[in-house]
Amino acid sequence: MDRSLIKDAKQNIDKSVNIMGRVMNARLLSNVSFLQVQDYTGTIQTVWEKPVEVKVGDAIEIIGTVRADERAKGGCEILGQEIKVLSTSIEELPIDLAKKDLNLQLTTLLDQRALSLRHPKVQAIFKLYDLLLKYYGQAMRVNSFTEIKTPKILGACSEGGANFFKIKYFDQSAYLAQSPQLYKQIMVGVFERVFEIGSTFRAEPHFTTRHVNEYISLDAEMGFINGFEDVATMLNKVLVEIFAGLKEEGAQFLAMYGEAGEILLPEKIPMVKLAEMKKIIKEKYDYAIPDTTDIDPEGERLAGRFAREEVNSDFIFLTHYPWSGRPFYTMPCADSPEETCGFDLIYRGVELATGGQRIHEYDKLIANMKKKGIKPDGMEHYLEVFKFAMPPHGGWGMGSERLIQQLLGLGSVKEAILFPRDVKRLCP
Amino acid sequence: MDRSLIKDAKQNIDKSVNIMGRVMNARLLSNVSFLQVQDYTGTIQTVWEKPVEVKVGDAIEIIGTVRADERAKGGCEILGQEIKVLSTSIEELPIDLAKKDLNLQLTTLLDQRALSLRHPKVQAIFKLYDLLLKYYGQAMRVNSFTEIKTPKILGACSEGGANFFKIKYFDQSAYLAQSPQLYKQIMVGVFERVFEIGSTFRAEPHFTTRHVNEYISLDAEMGFINGFEDVATMLNKVLVEIFAGLKEEGAQFLAMYGEAGEILLPEKIPMVKLAEMKKIIKEKYDYAIPDTTDIDPEGERLAGRFAREEVNSDFIFLTHYPWSGRPFYTMPCADSPEETCGFDLIYRGVELATGGQRIHEYDKLIANMKKKGIKPDGMEHYLEVFKFAMPPHGGWGMGSERLIQQLLGLGSVKEAILFPRDVKRLCP
Repeated sequence: MDRSLIKDAKQNIDKSVNIMGRVMNARLLSNVSFLQVQDYTGTIQTVWEKPVEVKVGDAIEIIGTVRADERAKGGCEILGQEIKVLSTSIEELPIDLAKKDLNLQLTTLLDQRALSLRHPKVQAIFKLYDLLLKYYGQAMRVNSFTEIKTPKILGACSEGGANFFKIKYFDQSAYLAQSPQLYKQIMVGVFERVFEIGSTFRAEPHFTTRHVNEYISLDAEMGFINGFEDVATMLNKVLVEIFAGLKEEGAQFLAMYGEAGEILLPEKIPMVKLAEMKKIIKEKYDYAIPDTTDIDPEGERLAGRFAREEVNSDFIFLTHYPWSGRPFYTMPCADSPEETCGFDLIYRGVELATGGQRIHEYDKLIANMKKKGIKPDGMEHYLEVFKFAMPPHGGWGMGSERLIQQLLGLGSVKEAILFPRDVKRLCP
Repeated sequence: MDRSLIKDAKQNIDKSVNIMGRVMNARLLSNVSFLQVQDYTGTIQTVWEKPVEVKVGDAIEIIGTVRADERAKGGCEILGQEIKVLSTSIEELPIDLAKKDLNLQLTTLLDQRALSLRHPKVQAIFKLYDLLLKYYGQAMRVNSFTEIKTPKILGACSEGGANFFKIKYFDQSAYLAQSPQLYKQIMVGVFERVFEIGSTFRAEPHFTTRHVNEYISLDAEMGFINGFEDVATMLNKVLVEIFAGLKEEGAQFLAMYGEAGEILLPEKIPMVKLAEMKKIIKEKYDYAIPDTTDIDPEGERLAGRFAREEVNSDFIFLTHYPWSGRPFYTMPCADSPEETCGFDLIYRGVELATGGQRIHEYDKLIANMKKKGIKPDGMEHYLEVFKFAMPPHGGWGMGSERLIQQLLGLGSVKEAILFPRDVKRLCP
């Protein structure tokens, strides 16, 4: 008998089906038992009017009859006839996967990752993550961006930066890419509009709830822009498409996170200059952002609060960050060169994306690097391309895991990564 | 005047349009000039009945009138009125991008990568690569696989292997992932069907036309299989969907590579046991594969020739590779334990994918590792999961760039990578 999929049960009312999957929950009573079974297409309740020998977590194969039941999720359940355990646990599960909430310490959750991921609420995080990847790609393609893959092993620390992981590369030294920045800019000269979904590595010794040392960045870069606003508008549009997809296809997973999963994303995300936002934060919330930083986490949190309270948006663009704090490739403002043509996108009080216009003229780029004291060593190939008619361009980098963290209100970004890496954690 | 896109020109016959893009070719005559202009949506011919000052490679903005012309590609061209150079080359282009074929040495092609990528025939490679990524994701989702992203920094050399790049990771040592193998298997216990598109790093000092040290692997893993044939069947199905997409959406790019771009992919790819194929190769082509290897490149080439000549297929599965040459997680055949339940997929005489069934029972896995002399150090988390009811499962890993290389008949896989990495090459 061929395998039936759980998602198709409804089309098989009163028919006999063969289901394979995992026992997610079991209530074994003396005269009747209930097993919740999950396969890769869904979950269904199975009812057994005879004793069954099975444990939560087992991989099983059953034969049963589908019957309509309005009380059941999906409108049907299966009356089980035969059950075969295909694979069972040879030790007791170290965590209780049948509980509604796992309620584990982050460390335990991650130490037991291979199993904690099997819990429905944890699965939901990564089902939404899957949809994020799907809809990011889809939205970029709708807007005629070409998908690219750029190297993660670099010959030199580019972007003038510290915080690179160093690799032994045959008889040379190499570094892990901190972002696809320089490559995606080069690719604007080829395809004008490009995007990348790629691994990114940061050797920063952070101990926060929103940093990790390896993550997946959602990048884009586009040419012939009239200013950074074109980039922000495109990002806005792409986010609207992504969240529409999450809402539609991910409804059941979002629902598991209640209010956290709600989406307040306007067609036009409010945009405020950083300097102005600092004033607002001082006046409205009586908080002074320290002079040592453009904006600190508390400032971002309050900017998010302002957006929510004043314009009913979970998103807000902060623009015109000071020149001193932005990378060398950032376009300074024409009328106020101490500020830059760029933005951070704040989502529920946390930086989700950074973007802006880049310098596209060779001489200006070299001058800006000098002014910042950055040596061109190792970036010659990147710089060279600006001698050959680069159009005005800009783009963004967005943290994929942070988007899911903020959407679901997860305590740490590590909960939104299958197998996160931090200063101490290299396994599983 | 708002920007018009080249792909929409046909809908604007006799109307005035504003086009922005790059000059791909220029014929400047005394009384009439022709500029080929490309934007991110296409290429169009523009005609100038007055002198224009512009160079090949310039980023320009033009205003002109679209007029129907049956001789023109796309059925129309633009009669130019105004032209503005937005960005120009400040040095002479080191390569002639207006030539029909670049005809460069591989080294030059790659040294000048930022510019050689702008050539239409090189662009075509990466337009097809973009489509490969698109259709791989789409085909996997159609078959209900969940997309995952697994870590590329590992705490230990897993898979018992050599050829790992070593990283300094804060005060520890770490390694770059050679494949997502162990993680994707763990994820079968979570979502049953998963796929990944991810960076892969191999510290092998190769100097061949088909190896690089960093590439993008197209991986998949699926549970509740009845044997490796289920995996091969799924891969076959996915390839049929991918190539249908490439053929339809990539026709203009495939056409630039003539016969090479043709596709001979049957609904059911032929499947031959390796031992049998060795006999065929000896008998038919009088070539003896050396005893030191399961199959060598010449053997693969001849297997490809056999498939082409005998069954009109560019693809062939070779199965039942010897136990000795396959990794420790490979399922040995039940009836012939010296062989394994797995396959290589040969595409035009080159290995494109490797796959098979894995061992899913803890005791068998440990026993197989012992037999191979592989220590469990650093793989404890992976091994642990097999104590908890893993279903029978299998999957594949497929080289994305090799697929494009073989499809287009490129001399080296490096031509199918934007910025390839080999033993010597770390930039651009």
